[in-house]
Amino acid sequence: MELTASQLAALVGGSVEGNPDVSVGTFAKIEEGMPGALSFLANPKYTHFIYETKSSVVLVRRDFEPEHEVKATLIRVDDPYATIAKLLEMVSEMTRVEKRGVEQPSFVAEGVEIPADAYVGAFAYIGKGAVIGKGAKIYPQTYVGAGCKVGDDTVLYPGVKVYDGCEIGARCILHSGVVIGSDGFGFAPVDGHYEKIPQTGNVVVADDVEIGANTTVDRAMMGSTRIGEGVKLDNLIQIAHNCTVGDHTVMAAQAGVAGSAKIGKHCMVGGQVGIVGHISIGDGTQIGAQSGVNKGTEPGARIMGSPAVDMGEYARGLVYLKRIPSMVEQLKKLNRK
Amino acid sequence: MELTASQLAALVGGSVEGNPDVSVGTFAKIEEGMPGALSFLANPKYTHFIYETKSSVVLVRRDFEPEHEVKATLIRVDDPYATIAKLLEMVSEMTRVEKRGVEQPSFVAEGVEIPADAYVGAFAYIGKGAVIGKGAKIYPQTYVGAGCKVGDDTVLYPGVKVYDGCEIGARCILHSGVVIGSDGFGFAPVDGHYEKIPQTGNVVVADDVEIGANTTVDRAMMGSTRIGEGVKLDNLIQIAHNCTVGDHTVMAAQAGVAGSAKIGKHCMVGGQVGIVGHISIGDGTQIGAQSGVNKGTEPGARIMGSPAVDMGEYARGLVYLKRIPSMVEQLKKLNRK
Amino acid sequence: MELTASQLAALVGGSVEGNPDVSVGTFAKIEEGMPGALSFLANPKYTHFIYETKSSVVLVRRDFEPEHEVKATLIRVDDPYATIAKLLEMVSEMTRVEKRGVEQPSFVAEGVEIPADAYVGAFAYIGKGAVIGKGAKIYPQTYVGAGCKVGDDTVLYPGVKVYDGCEIGARCILHSGVVIGSDGFGFAPVDGHYEKIPQTGNVVVADDVEIGANTTVDRAMMGSTRIGEGVKLDNLIQIAHNCTVGDHTVMAAQAGVAGSAKIGKHCMVGGQVGIVGHISIGDGTQIGAQSGVNKGTEPGARIMGSPAVDMGEYARGLVYLKRIPSMVEQLKKLNRK
Repeated sequence: MELTASQLAALVGGSVEGNPDVSVGTFAKIEEGMPGALSFLANPKYTHFIYETKSSVVLVRRDFEPEHEVKATLIRVDDPYATIAKLLEMVSEMTRVEKRGVEQPSFVAEGVEIPADAYVGAFAYIGKGAVIGKGAKIYPQTYVGAGCKVGDDTVLYPGVKVYDGCEIGARCILHSGVVIGSDGFGFAPVDGHYEKIPQTGNVVVADDVEIGANTTVDRAMMGSTRIGEGVKLDNLIQIAHNCTVGDHTVMAAQAGVAGSAKIGKHCMVGGQVGIVGHISIGDGTQIGAQSGVNKGTEPGARIMGSPAVDMGEYARGLVYLKRIPSMVEQLKKLNRK
Repeated sequence: MELTASQLAALVGGSVEGNPDVSVGTFAKIEEGMPGALSFLANPKYTHFIYETKSSVVLVRRDFEPEHEVKATLIRVDDPYATIAKLLEMVSEMTRVEKRGVEQPSFVAEGVEIPADAYVGAFAYIGKGAVIGKGAKIYPQTYVGAGCKVGDDTVLYPGVKVYDGCEIGARCILHSGVVIGSDGFGFAPVDGHYEKIPQTGNVVVADDVEIGANTTVDRAMMGSTRIGEGVKLDNLIQIAHNCTVGDHTVMAAQAGVAGSAKIGKHCMVGGQVGIVGHISIGDGTQIGAQSGVNKGTEPGARIMGSPAVDMGEYARGLVYLKRIPSMVEQLKKLNRK
Repeated sequence: MELTASQLAALVGGSVEGNPDVSVGTFAKIEEGMPGALSFLANPKYTHFIYETKSSVVLVRRDFEPEHEVKATLIRVDDPYATIAKLLEMVSEMTRVEKRGVEQPSFVAEGVEIPADAYVGAFAYIGKGAVIGKGAKIYPQTYVGAGCKVGDDTVLYPGVKVYDGCEIGARCILHSGVVIGSDGFGFAPVDGHYEKIPQTGNVVVADDVEIGANTTVDRAMMGSTRIGEGVKLDNLIQIAHNCTVGDHTVMAAQAGVAGSAKIGKHCMVGGQVGIVGHISIGDGTQIGAQSGVNKGTEPGARIMGSPAVDMGEYARGLVYLKRIPSMVEQLKKLNRK
């Protein structure tokens, strides 16, 4: 399907600058542009690409002022990133293959009802007493343990494992290799070895959560490990037993949260961050990548480093480190006097 | 099932303080207490919750001295954490659903014997010549390669993968997504590219080991990668080829150990720690979270930081860093004079 | 099969020193040597083991000069590590069990052709329109989505998941738990929550790539996430959407690369390294373990630390840190004057 620049502009509420009749049929990153493609410019870092891109049409901010000649036709919009996202969503909707029905062979325990518009892939396993929501997509090789709940329109990609008794909300997306409800890491030292503390709780994942590939969320020792509404977890993250992750918090890949930590709402946690157990991170806290957080934070805190401190203090610390060589020189001189 | 405070106290060898007739039927964390629930207080950080908890009964240490009025009935015991663990274990035992038999469809290679009290879940794959112990539980979608040994009463949760020729001891628990015996990362640079060094060894996991979700243990190039008796590995840990992890060592989530490192017995390794290859970590070493360990340690060492140093030195280093701003000021003054 | 030292020497083009008639039938690490075994000495750190090893024959460099008596027979070669690798390869070839054919039950979508010399294991799932190369080995419980391409002689170990539309080259090895093509982590903040940005691109893995257990590679938002020819990724690595990893680059375990980063060719990335998004790492860059890379590098750079700096600067920085205590003392003295 092809659209002209003027058709596109009408669709997204933008204004055309350049040839309104040029048409596009695909998407491309601005730096990988090609004739017939639509690109976008959102990150100022990429501005220089707009002068050389081969894409036919580029979405830009309304206030974008080119410094050189631009060959591509521009469509000015309020938010190029949001606009491209909307367009991708439309294409994605149109090309989605609607999976439905129960593929064979699969294992659905006696008494479990699979709604007519749900999908259960081959080699999937649905345990006793599990409740599967309307429109849920349970891909092949997925495990849904006994007594689990999977909400309406939730997608479990191939190979997701949900242990017995865990609950996943509606409209969630769990990517391949996600493990929900594995035992928390709880052991009591007894006479030179460790005895397992049974982990009798579960995991409760609220609505509209997305969890990245191979991320793990352990079940609580007692009660529930809780992932709040709208939370987005990237790949290879560890959430330990009895943690709470507040609504609309996002965490980048390979972050880890130790047992019983409470992460507030609307937090942003960088990649490879570690958070110790039994602390409370205030709502809206932002944590820089690779930080090691060993104490709780107030709402709105912005922290960085290992151990993590206020971002301003962290930045000043780096500056001070760079002064040491000159301090050594100054001391030498002073000592000579 | 409900028990009164006095029945509970008799069961666990504790003494009652408060109403001996109040009864409980479930567990709750002290900060999430509710009427009819049993809680415990072990971590002093949580002491303030005891004055406001809604739980009916709380296990406390024998020497606990409340500073305000406590509404809950107290049961005094030597070790509240160990006691709650024992109670959870009892409940866990009573509610355990005993899995047995071979679910269909599954794949058991010709000649492999499955003991009568073992469980093989649907879509599990047991390769040629594998030996499955009595009472072993091989959950759905698990892979046990040719020639593997799985010890008595060992549990492989859904989706565990054990490559050919690896051995897992008795009473082990491997959580979903664990990979045992993938090829070690061994390549020889040849003319601008890398040639694979075949990894012909295996992995040997001793008895009573627990391995967390999505943790990976690579097979040895030659000989065996060894996980000692009673070792507890958390989630998302990497153990490289030819490593040895000593008996009763515990490692927190996302730690990584490079090739041919030897970790002693009874060590404690924090989360996100990295340990370089070809070094030897002494028995009883404790390593703080996020440390980067680039040389071997003596037995009983306590280290921290990246590169890791003695914990005392690490703490002093942090203190010295905080002095730099005042040093800069002092130098300015001195220079002016 | 047993070979004498002189037969071995002839096979590998080496010269014998000691008893040429002693024979070996297995491999052992030099520190775990035993009679009848062949060991090698490549890493100088292990030199002291050669005087006490129980192995019958040891491969050493041509210029190796023992400082004490050596009991083992030596075979001198140009490169002991490359030689042992070649011998392991030969043994590995001879003992390889050639898997072929389609095990049942498996799921192969209508119209997909499985070459006669390929292998599809039980509980594997091959989606519509997938193209499977000659000699490819698709192990049990593996998922190959609709429209995927798997190249000739590529091995997908048990439990690998390849999402729809991704392409894997020839002679690749993907270990258990690898996820290729999961959605990139892209969300737009809208009114206090996040809306998903559809990830409509794919992942393209070139020829001769090896990817370690539980590593994840996300699909591009638009276009392709690209893993270059001959790239070797260790276990538990995260490659985010729209990244490019250049030919013959190697990354150690638990490294992570954020979105749209471009990693050059022939780079070496240490374990647990984090690389931020939207930067370009020059060809041949070497990055020390646990580094945090927050800006691009020139070709041939050698960097370390978090934030990462030139390795020389990093080393000097560590030296300066150690001077602070003496600087504090000197300042005290000067102030007293």
